[in-house]
Amino acid sequence: MNTPVDSVGIVAPDVFRHEAPFELQCGTVLEHFELIYETYGALNATRSNAVLICHALSGNHHAAGYTHVDDRKPGWWDSCIGPGKAIDTDQFYVISANNLGGCHGSTGPLSLNPTTGKPYGADFPTVVVKDWVDSQALLADALGIQKFAAIIGGSLGGMQAMQWAMSYPERVHAAVVIAAAAKLSAQNIAFNEIARQAITADTNFADGSYASADISPDKGLGLARMIGHVTYLSDDGMHEKFGRELKSGDLDSGAGVEFQVESYLRHQGQAFAQRFDANTYILMTKALDFFDPARENDNDLVHTFAPAQAKFLILSFTTDWRFSVARSKEIVDALITARKNVASAIITSDHGHDSFLIPLPRYTEILRAYLGRVLDDLDILPI
Amino acid sequence: MNTPVDSVGIVAPDVFRHEAPFELQCGTVLEHFELIYETYGALNATRSNAVLICHALSGNHHAAGYTHVDDRKPGWWDSCIGPGKAIDTDQFYVISANNLGGCHGSTGPLSLNPTTGKPYGADFPTVVVKDWVDSQALLADALGIQKFAAIIGGSLGGMQAMQWAMSYPERVHAAVVIAAAAKLSAQNIAFNEIARQAITADTNFADGSYASADISPDKGLGLARMIGHVTYLSDDGMHEKFGRELKSGDLDSGAGVEFQVESYLRHQGQAFAQRFDANTYILMTKALDFFDPARENDNDLVHTFAPAQAKFLILSFTTDWRFSVARSKEIVDALITARKNVASAIITSDHGHDSFLIPLPRYTEILRAYLGRVLDDLDILPI
Repeated sequence: MNTPVDSVGIVAPDVFRHEAPFELQCGTVLEHFELIYETYGALNATRSNAVLICHALSGNHHAAGYTHVDDRKPGWWDSCIGPGKAIDTDQFYVISANNLGGCHGSTGPLSLNPTTGKPYGADFPTVVVKDWVDSQALLADALGIQKFAAIIGGSLGGMQAMQWAMSYPERVHAAVVIAAAAKLSAQNIAFNEIARQAITADTNFADGSYASADISPDKGLGLARMIGHVTYLSDDGMHEKFGRELKSGDLDSGAGVEFQVESYLRHQGQAFAQRFDANTYILMTKALDFFDPARENDNDLVHTFAPAQAKFLILSFTTDWRFSVARSKEIVDALITARKNVASAIITSDHGHDSFLIPLPRYTEILRAYLGRVLDDLDILPI
Repeated sequence: MNTPVDSVGIVAPDVFRHEAPFELQCGTVLEHFELIYETYGALNATRSNAVLICHALSGNHHAAGYTHVDDRKPGWWDSCIGPGKAIDTDQFYVISANNLGGCHGSTGPLSLNPTTGKPYGADFPTVVVKDWVDSQALLADALGIQKFAAIIGGSLGGMQAMQWAMSYPERVHAAVVIAAAAKLSAQNIAFNEIARQAITADTNFADGSYASADISPDKGLGLARMIGHVTYLSDDGMHEKFGRELKSGDLDSGAGVEFQVESYLRHQGQAFAQRFDANTYILMTKALDFFDPARENDNDLVHTFAPAQAKFLILSFTTDWRFSVARSKEIVDALITARKNVASAIITSDHGHDSFLIPLPRYTEILRAYLGRVLDDLDILPI
């Protein structure tokens, strides 16, 4: 097929291999690690037009374009990344890496543990948001990028964008933080914990060593996904999409009843279990739970943001109840009080937390306009 | 121990046995059935002071009082039922039965299937809200109660109170419908379906025949309970109760981290699995999903309520997002349009859907005042 004209086209990943020891926040040292990544667009001569995309819980490096000519489904944020799109690859050099601990090519639980010669499985060390940012900084070094024009992420990706601004103030011009939070609530942690328990309760989890045993906790991982998925949608959005429509059965007698939403969820769970790794799911949800940068500053978020030099764009969505508008307001308020350059918008949407993946017109226009200002700030000319 | 002065004291259940065939909405005929029930207070000479309490998903007949002298935990609605309490057993004769399909003494999946001589398990027929109401009506007949002064229920219990008013208009003076809905939303069905899948995914579920095999799907049922429990609480309530408090571990390194909310949830899940039956959980959640009385009236709720003669009290709670204020407003609006006698209140509470079990002062005072009017309506004098 021909890829659409506003697509980055057929893409192939690269692998960055860091050959030196890398100490994680938990104290464990990885003797080396690999990050798989994709790039879209071209780096300009002054190396000023690089944009880093940080992915969320179930994302990966394949953010835009198609992997082969018969590929019918583009990368997860193809709606926003491409020539002429909000994150315009005619202007920006866009980098998207699979996080450390991921399951799509970066070093993670499916990688061979050099000590045992078997997959790490549950023995892969705990990774936190800071570790991801540090490893991404090493990737940036390797690519010769001293400073990003923008670092952009939704949900867990937004946490990375914030952490970048704090860990590497001089390396971030703009941080775009979408549908994120400065820390998870007890409710959020609870949903993540139930998802983890669904995985570990599956007898095929085998204490996390399923890969070595060539089995797979598909039911548990499917359940985890279903729990996540329902909470990433909104009640209104689900009503619009499914209502109480039946797939089969008779509601009056109760015989053989299956609601459309039930069959949809089952499909979502099964499909996810095919493409994702259970240990990575556990690792990623823990990184979400543990993120709490203000904690080491007496829970003072204003003080926590003090080192940041970036300008910030904070976006949230009206029906997002996992990472609600109120959580984004906390970030905005702290940034204002810390006297940072901050813009923000609350986007009306029926799509709950998943809104950040959906090309809602106001959302993409705000992104486009903001990144236009970034181009102006940095005197970036079209390549 | 001495039970508190405002307690109904030590209680013992009775069993009602219906010896005639009973046809369920699904068409299956039970040759006979039993309902276990408790009563508190005394029936007056005119038999006009009976109140029926309808329980929710995980409730049972033991609504008030203590089962033995060393019992430290009273029945599930002891805060509202007792001498001088909102549902005053000095005035009312209160009846609380375990629903058909339950697991605490009424005929249900744990009962012996007369055809096989083994527990019904998953072969127990589908039961819907109408069946419960019909079986409760037979219990009322047996107790010589022609008309209830009030039928009161929260959540799934509220659905029964509504169904009573429609199925037996002449037998209900007042219907008190608390934290309920005229039908579940897609989101609600989704959470119930995930809970069911958590149960059936447990290898110990054994297609529902675990009781015959003397095993028990405790992990799956525990997960189902955790999913339900989190959704019955509110984000604010969980923040108040747990915040991000740690039970163990170090958040910066991520080593051995356990949040308080995680250990709490695990305990809730484990405790529930000890006291509840998985097939009953599946059956009860399906009854919730299937309830949709307007469906057979072209989705016209006003027309659906037309036969009702009862007066209604509809209560909802601000932070309840499973059975939200909006769902109760739909009921109130339909009742007003149907020209019924309806009072309603929205109670401010941090406790989410669980609020209906909690003795919030405004809530209990409204219940007390409304039932006081019922006493006046019916010229009920203290016994």
